[in-house]
Amino acid sequence: MIHGDKMIGYPTKVSFDVSEEKNRSSASHIGRGMSLENDINDSNDYYLATDRACIHKKPTPIQVVRVDYPNRAHAKIVEAYYKIPSTTDYNGVYRGKAIDFEAKQTKNKGSFPFQLIHPHQIEHMKKVLLHGGIAFVILRFTTHNETYLIDGKDMIRAYEDPTLKSLSYNKVKKIGILIEENYIPRLKYLDAVDQMYFKEELYGKENKAEK
Amino acid sequence: MIHGDKMIGYPTKVSFDVSEEKNRSSASHIGRGMSLENDINDSNDYYLATDRACIHKKPTPIQVVRVDYPNRAHAKIVEAYYKIPSTTDYNGVYRGKAIDFEAKQTKNKGSFPFQLIHPHQIEHMKKVLLHGGIAFVILRFTTHNETYLIDGKDMIRAYEDPTLKSLSYNKVKKIGILIEENYIPRLKYLDAVDQMYFKEELYGKENKAEK
Repeated sequence: MIHGDKMIGYPTKVSFDVSEEKNRSSASHIGRGMSLENDINDSNDYYLATDRACIHKKPTPIQVVRVDYPNRAHAKIVEAYYKIPSTTDYNGVYRGKAIDFEAKQTKNKGSFPFQLIHPHQIEHMKKVLLHGGIAFVILRFTTHNETYLIDGKDMIRAYEDPTLKSLSYNKVKKIGILIEENYIPRLKYLDAVDQMYFKEELYGKENKAEK
Repeated sequence: MIHGDKMIGYPTKVSFDVSEEKNRSSASHIGRGMSLENDINDSNDYYLATDRACIHKKPTPIQVVRVDYPNRAHAKIVEAYYKIPSTTDYNGVYRGKAIDFEAKQTKNKGSFPFQLIHPHQIEHMKKVLLHGGIAFVILRFTTHNETYLIDGKDMIRAYEDPTLKSLSYNKVKKIGILIEENYIPRLKYLDAVDQMYFKEELYGKENKAEK
């Protein structure tokens, strides 16, 4: 029914072009971001299979305009467009908490440009935090071959600082947690989440008071 | 860029046909489920705007096969297919907890047939529960004009009972919570969530012990 194997990379490549880098729609950016997304998806599969967490990538939002029915059981979409996501890309449950995050990568050496994050996504992270979820951003500097976890509150604060148009690499090194890369899982980002958000639990405080 | 206004109902109608009722692909089912989905989406908008919760419908998963580029900035999808969802349709954060649910409706008077729920969705609910999230199903009996919240554990137990192929209407009335319908929000399902999962908090026990 679905015969997309030969073009397996298509949806996401285009998605990255359309949604995330729309503001600067530079054709050279198409395809960037694929490896980070694959790494996270692989890690999520591993975390799900080993009962560490239940975290999924949300499907890319698509506006369907026209559908053909070659037969009753099969719907073939023949006209559709990518939409700008109103939320972040990943969410789920970990250690009893709602987890919500966005993942971005840049070829820039010196900073992570805020234009890679959509304002809707910042608003969404605020809402997640307001209701008691954990929100963060995973940033990859492809040139340095390094991936960091940045707390959502830090990202929001920097994003909303009118004097900043990017987060410097040095700042990321200071406020972020470097995510260890490995074979399985590819990106041990939940270890970074543990460090950032579950230190008390990990150090044996069993009855953490509710904040 | 997106000119789908005139056909706004298309994506979901087809989605309902393809994904949820695939097992019995009966053409007469196309279009069912729209009103419940709209009611929930409206309620979610209201809950989001009033800072009661942050809950969203996930986009319908679509396998994109072919994309045209009329120009650099615009991607037009010209061949794509609906995929079977591997998770439930709705999730988010409420009162510090991860919330995850599926919504289904039936015209049946006497029972809710399990074939309307995909096995993947049952597996997903188990994972959500395992990691400490709240999982449930919203069931609407269109003939009775009644909508119920059923706890995920109850739904899983019934679904996995080899002697059952459906959940009887009487059982739903017994184990479910009737969701009040209103103008704003259309479906006060978080009140039912409060009753089902947050009774202790609501009755003033401030230091609920962790289970």
